Amino acid sequence: MRSIVNQCADAKAALSALAALNAAEKNAILAAMADAIDRDQDSILGANQQDVQQGQSEGLSVALIDRLTLTPGRVKGMSDGLRAIVALRDPVGEIVDGWVQPNGLSLRKVRVPLGVIGIIYEARPNVTVDAAGLCLKTGNAVVLRGSSSTYRSNRAIVDVLQSAIPAHLPKGMIQLLDDTSRAGVLEFVKLKQYLNLVIPRGGASLIQTVVDNATVPSIETGIGNCHIFVDRSANLDWAESIIINAKVQRPSVCNSCESVLVHSEIAANFMPRLANAMRQHHVEIRGCERTCQLVPDAKPAQAADWDTEFLDLIVAVKVVDSIDAAIGHIAVHGTLHSEAIVSNDHESITKFTTMVDAAAVLVNASTRFVDGGEFGFGAEMGISTQKLHARGPMGLPELTTVKYIVQGQGLTR
Amino acid sequence: MRSIVNQCADAKAALSALAALNAAEKNAILAAMADAIDRDQDSILGANQQDVQQGQSEGLSVALIDRLTLTPGRVKGMSDGLRAIVALRDPVGEIVDGWVQPNGLSLRKVRVPLGVIGIIYEARPNVTVDAAGLCLKTGNAVVLRGSSSTYRSNRAIVDVLQSAIPAHLPKGMIQLLDDTSRAGVLEFVKLKQYLNLVIPRGGASLIQTVVDNATVPSIETGIGNCHIFVDRSANLDWAESIIINAKVQRPSVCNSCESVLVHSEIAANFMPRLANAMRQHHVEIRGCERTCQLVPDAKPAQAADWDTEFLDLIVAVKVVDSIDAAIGHIAVHGTLHSEAIVSNDHESITKFTTMVDAAAVLVNASTRFVDGGEFGFGAEMGISTQKLHARGPMGLPELTTVKYIVQGQGLTR
Repeated sequence: MRSIVNQCADAKAALSALAALNAAEKNAILAAMADAIDRDQDSILGANQQDVQQGQSEGLSVALIDRLTLTPGRVKGMSDGLRAIVALRDPVGEIVDGWVQPNGLSLRKVRVPLGVIGIIYEARPNVTVDAAGLCLKTGNAVVLRGSSSTYRSNRAIVDVLQSAIPAHLPKGMIQLLDDTSRAGVLEFVKLKQYLNLVIPRGGASLIQTVVDNATVPSIETGIGNCHIFVDRSANLDWAESIIINAKVQRPSVCNSCESVLVHSEIAANFMPRLANAMRQHHVEIRGCERTCQLVPDAKPAQAADWDTEFLDLIVAVKVVDSIDAAIGHIAVHGTLHSEAIVSNDHESITKFTTMVDAAAVLVNASTRFVDGGEFGFGAEMGISTQKLHARGPMGLPELTTVKYIVQGQGLTR
Repeated sequence: MRSIVNQCADAKAALSALAALNAAEKNAILAAMADAIDRDQDSILGANQQDVQQGQSEGLSVALIDRLTLTPGRVKGMSDGLRAIVALRDPVGEIVDGWVQPNGLSLRKVRVPLGVIGIIYEARPNVTVDAAGLCLKTGNAVVLRGSSSTYRSNRAIVDVLQSAIPAHLPKGMIQLLDDTSRAGVLEFVKLKQYLNLVIPRGGASLIQTVVDNATVPSIETGIGNCHIFVDRSANLDWAESIIINAKVQRPSVCNSCESVLVHSEIAANFMPRLANAMRQHHVEIRGCERTCQLVPDAKPAQAADWDTEFLDLIVAVKVVDSIDAAIGHIAVHGTLHSEAIVSNDHESITKFTTMVDAAAVLVNASTRFVDGGEFGFGAEMGISTQKLHARGPMGLPELTTVKYIVQGQGLTR
């Protein structure tokens, strides 16, 4: 087993070779990787079968087994994902800004790779391919720390990806950590001399562990206690379809809706039809006192429900007396992810979009749209719920930094 | 003495009032603050005199006493600084990007304040005014943690600034921590529920303490072991004037030059004239073996000299056999701040600007230009030497984040 520090050092050593690659060269490697995955599908599926068997023998939940299981279709999804990354524009080298100072000093602000990016993720093996592809496209080396339950699958995938790297280039540009211990995470997130960024992708406790212990700069992703506020001026057809879509289309993801706030002036009218739609979709309502009066079969909400990311067919529903009360509730219980208003009142919409602090504030649209693909980014490295560097869906530009190139003609101060 | 947590909570509580201010309202407060400083100059100078006396009785160094001493001219510099901030364009509300997806989903990426910004800084009281002004301009609340040796001066300044905040607005938007203990720093940088960003401005040990202990996202600033590489194609007049300017114009700052790398093909020709110019400016040369052969009065460099930010009239000088050797030396010893090449060879310049990893790479210009004022930003919150969020001089936009405002017409996935 190689040590974490050695693997990270190998990744850093690959940076100068990566910096010398142009977009066409990087795309050729990505395409070769996609072909290699298609060709070596059996080795990946075979390794995955061992992970699945071990997971079953260790009693992992059905949901977890489903997330780590690969099928020929899912493996094809991986190679297609790499080909989609080939088609994206390479942000490296983009001149973000440029100007000349009065003294003749000429400045260009240019996009460059971040360096070595560490990703810590849980069961899904497709993250291995996505993260490796996005990092290679942007000229970054990547160190992947997958979970121990998918180590064989991830190892098979990374072996296939590395087989497609031309012989004259360092295979270290893509590293899968051999050490998948919990203690290893704590060591990993402190390797500031090798890592330029660490991204935790997973549950709240993983993210908390990284934030509490990292000295490497990190980006928090993916906790979403997303609200939808139905204003008194709302088109109630829109409100119903947006809430149902945001709750039931894919309840297990971070941009699904967890809490609904209903303006008291329309609550008597809207609540019964909302409850009816929820019943049809088998969604459990946990309501405030006024909600429970209007919806007799609703469960009374407990205090913790307003702060819970259910990731399930459960929704918390509260009646509020004003838009200010809605904004106040979101300020206390929101997670800076995605917050929506359904309204036809211009003043309310302006107030909500101005005062609500979140990566994305939606007007008359489902929170499910807050996603790299839906935003048109083509690929996504997670959704940032913090404010530094990247906010919301992170595409290729968010995996880069800038460098100033400053030119003079023998210029001094 | 108020507790750190209470002061930070007060700052956070001021955010919604700040968010509601437009640029004209913020500028009016900044102008009133500038006038208040001019009017109450005596109270500030009086408090400062007490700090100076205490510093002298405690035996602080002459340099430190100089840094914390205020004069009528320096106080006028503070109010002028605020008026300069009034004149800058407010980045809040700027639409950074915007587009419509094929399904009609309309997206705007808008600049918004970061929230509560913590600044930890050492002796200079002018940072109190600069930081407060830049944060107010960008709609952020600020929590200032100055050093205990300037507490009275900082308190007097903040009292004056707060006196200019209109009665209907929370004075908590500008906070000076009462607790200036070392233990307090460790508590401060972990208050993630209140602080959105912490910026350490000071020496290497302060920055290390913050990086090692912060759970609040932080931006490292201001360590600069800056190199100038004199290529074999260099205009030697330019090389000499750029090196002397970068070394002697203000040796104590982070963008001054600490190491010079000279191409071996021109070393015999250039080194004697460089040494002569250094002698005239009383700069001590610490040279590699080959440098010492060409400059008999140079001191032999010790290994540590290649990694030392001298901040003094001392320079390390090394002969290198190629541009690759220069780039390799900088990769090992550089601090990602500012690195310069003096050259007339297009291929060398392209290689250097591409391969050197730094916030700013300069061509035929002094490293001293890497500065918010010289870049035309009008004001500066420090120079970031990390890669996330902000790189190089940080102006007003670097004190903001973005928010996506996403609109549909009842749109669902």
